[in-house]
Amino acid sequence: MKRKKFIQTSTLAGLGATILPNVAFSKLTSKKRVNIGVIGTGLRGQWVLWLMAKYPEVDIVSICDIDEEMIQSALKILKDAGKPEPKVYKNGDEDFRNMLVNEALDGVYIATPWEWHAQMSLEAMNAGVNVGTEVPAAITVDDCWSLVDTSEKTGKFCMIMENVCYRRDVIAVLNMVRQGLFGELLHCQGGYQHDLRHVKFNDGVQPYGGGVEFGKKGYSESEWRTQHSIDRNGDLYPTHGLGPVSTMLDINRGNRMVYLTSTATQSRGLHNYIVKLGGKFHPNAKVEFKLGDIVTTVIKCANGQTIMLSHDTNSPRPYSLNFRVQGTKGIWMRDNDSIYIEGRSPKEHVWESEEGYMTEYDHPLWKRFEEQASGSGHGGMDFFILRAFIESIKQNVPPPIDVYDAVSLSVICPLSEESISNNSASVEIPDFTRGKWKTNKPIFGLTDEM
Amino acid sequence: MKRKKFIQTSTLAGLGATILPNVAFSKLTSKKRVNIGVIGTGLRGQWVLWLMAKYPEVDIVSICDIDEEMIQSALKILKDAGKPEPKVYKNGDEDFRNMLVNEALDGVYIATPWEWHAQMSLEAMNAGVNVGTEVPAAITVDDCWSLVDTSEKTGKFCMIMENVCYRRDVIAVLNMVRQGLFGELLHCQGGYQHDLRHVKFNDGVQPYGGGVEFGKKGYSESEWRTQHSIDRNGDLYPTHGLGPVSTMLDINRGNRMVYLTSTATQSRGLHNYIVKLGGKFHPNAKVEFKLGDIVTTVIKCANGQTIMLSHDTNSPRPYSLNFRVQGTKGIWMRDNDSIYIEGRSPKEHVWESEEGYMTEYDHPLWKRFEEQASGSGHGGMDFFILRAFIESIKQNVPPPIDVYDAVSLSVICPLSEESISNNSASVEIPDFTRGKWKTNKPIFGLTDEM
Repeated sequence: MKRKKFIQTSTLAGLGATILPNVAFSKLTSKKRVNIGVIGTGLRGQWVLWLMAKYPEVDIVSICDIDEEMIQSALKILKDAGKPEPKVYKNGDEDFRNMLVNEALDGVYIATPWEWHAQMSLEAMNAGVNVGTEVPAAITVDDCWSLVDTSEKTGKFCMIMENVCYRRDVIAVLNMVRQGLFGELLHCQGGYQHDLRHVKFNDGVQPYGGGVEFGKKGYSESEWRTQHSIDRNGDLYPTHGLGPVSTMLDINRGNRMVYLTSTATQSRGLHNYIVKLGGKFHPNAKVEFKLGDIVTTVIKCANGQTIMLSHDTNSPRPYSLNFRVQGTKGIWMRDNDSIYIEGRSPKEHVWESEEGYMTEYDHPLWKRFEEQASGSGHGGMDFFILRAFIESIKQNVPPPIDVYDAVSLSVICPLSEESISNNSASVEIPDFTRGKWKTNKPIFGLTDEM
Repeated sequence: MKRKKFIQTSTLAGLGATILPNVAFSKLTSKKRVNIGVIGTGLRGQWVLWLMAKYPEVDIVSICDIDEEMIQSALKILKDAGKPEPKVYKNGDEDFRNMLVNEALDGVYIATPWEWHAQMSLEAMNAGVNVGTEVPAAITVDDCWSLVDTSEKTGKFCMIMENVCYRRDVIAVLNMVRQGLFGELLHCQGGYQHDLRHVKFNDGVQPYGGGVEFGKKGYSESEWRTQHSIDRNGDLYPTHGLGPVSTMLDINRGNRMVYLTSTATQSRGLHNYIVKLGGKFHPNAKVEFKLGDIVTTVIKCANGQTIMLSHDTNSPRPYSLNFRVQGTKGIWMRDNDSIYIEGRSPKEHVWESEEGYMTEYDHPLWKRFEEQASGSGHGGMDFFILRAFIESIKQNVPPPIDVYDAVSLSVICPLSEESISNNSASVEIPDFTRGKWKTNKPIFGLTDEM
């Protein structure tokens, strides 16, 4: 029996019970080892491989990419980590299908360009493989629905690897929210405010900056990411801001997002950057970018709350995910590192430093895994998100960020485009849970388990 | 010839030229003395009277209110300042009409409840009197149009007394904008984030707090302001945030606001406050408040920029007008007292303190009048706005914040209500300039004159 077949069988209720009851129904040790494949071994995929290689129980059985250089870097990372050489799928854009069908995978990690995430996730689940996909999980409404339908049909999970949900401050604030520090939540803010001009353009040799090339003449992310700024005007990258506040607002679990509006500024930053670095006669100076430099999205929730998201990637500015969490009793704001809680903050209507709160409400996960998390990328966030992916597979349990989260976070991309193209018209947000949000219970960050 | 009649005549082109050419066309000294009336002598009106009394050339000829206590306080202020006793109009809600018709006023200052501003402004202009009205100038779209039509018809001005336009940091940032520090503007934020619970409720004796009464049992602002939170769900007070960014974005003068969306949270803060202080059996605990605790409005401008406004007056929080000004070259943000300018800020993508910039770009008005402004209310802002009102009358010139500003700032109130009541539908913003915004030139804060 091939390993994959075994997994598929063991997760089917009834069948598993007669064959291997102790394995199939033991929550903590249903499986000792985990077979993982990775699609996309660019810089992000390589980093994930480096982290994954630290898990002795994880077998990285196969990798897939179309770029020989990236594949070699990936193989070196695994070799240096003392891992066996994985099987390599590199025979064109569609070879990932062969990997999904041929290999006995428990899970696949998808770190490819955005436009591939949904398709690869769908094929993985249909092949009986659990999915961890980089953000966003999909960029069309139809693909969002397909992900839900396919996950429900196959019983495989589709976890969106939204690492910011685990950022130490953010998950501490989730802890504060759950302990009632802010009272009833009213308004949250998040966003992606990150000057990506040196990511969207480079010299074709190094990943960041040094030139104004992209697409075929670019390198790394500029090869594919920049094209989205040409073709689309919307919040292209909402999940880093929305993921964390979704957990605080119990989205899909007692609450849901009902409608949104998006409004975009004019588009200037990318063109200006090309002209400034490449001169006005550079061929790329003729490229027209649809993406407004700053996109503001406002979301209304079923329980009354509002969420404001900003997408701001084409302009010179300090990095900030724009977090603000406000309730009937107080407010936290990231950009000034401050908090105010009525009746607790020492001076009425005066901010105090968030520092003491962050220590007091440090999340159990961080307390438990601080040592492992440090140095594990993006301030430790990558450690937790990857661990949750692996543990969910190992323990055969639903992941703490599931397919409903994946699509409700990702659907903001196409819906914001729709709103902007219609003068900020209000756009309904689908209920991907089909009404189950009313009874579903929160699943994220409840314990120190994952 | 009654004084008022004289003024009306002298402002009519042609006529004035033949009668008193030197007076009518001399920009700086067209009039030596100014006759002012004040409608509304509540706490705000009294403060304005106290400031106005410092101008030797201003004769406060009449005041109007319906509250004897407030009138007496106002009279005492003028007496203490050595000003002659004004005529008092106090014979009911409509007595202001008599004042406008009977007195020879050059200008009237309106500091009444919001719902009276438009009507009083209209009647004043129709009586040949220039208007300075507290914010907002109107709360319906129809009244906004009437103000424009009436100002155009009568040749009288309607200045909105939006003092924040003169706040030292804000007008320094305007200076930075005009000197190109931020490049081309992309996105601005403003708002009114001010815990007004102790303003909306009091004990009926003191103006701020101490109880949960309002309306007839309340005192000062709670007598009228709170009712708006019961009847309306929208951005009730947009002008403090919008006024300053309007000047930066050249609204009505090269640019205009085209459409908006507004989204409101649930309403909790006012009810909770009543229950907390008055107990759940207090009669006011049954009052239902329409106003969402936080209202987020996003505006799109003809030149591409976006404006985000927040209205947040029912919750415990530090005061903040939420300013952010962002362009292609940099960003200023009030809440962290910081600025970032590409190529100038010492560290790439790292905030620096705004302090040096505020000194370097201190506005000429502040440099000239710093001494007089200090101690003149709201950090000096009131000095400048009142001075501009008086000087505009004295010099017989259009005010630096005119009727088009008055209505484009104020119309956000009813339009945001409309948007919210239609699930954040996009609502068109009228062009009150009837196309003149395309050729009108900026008028605010150009010199150290006003």
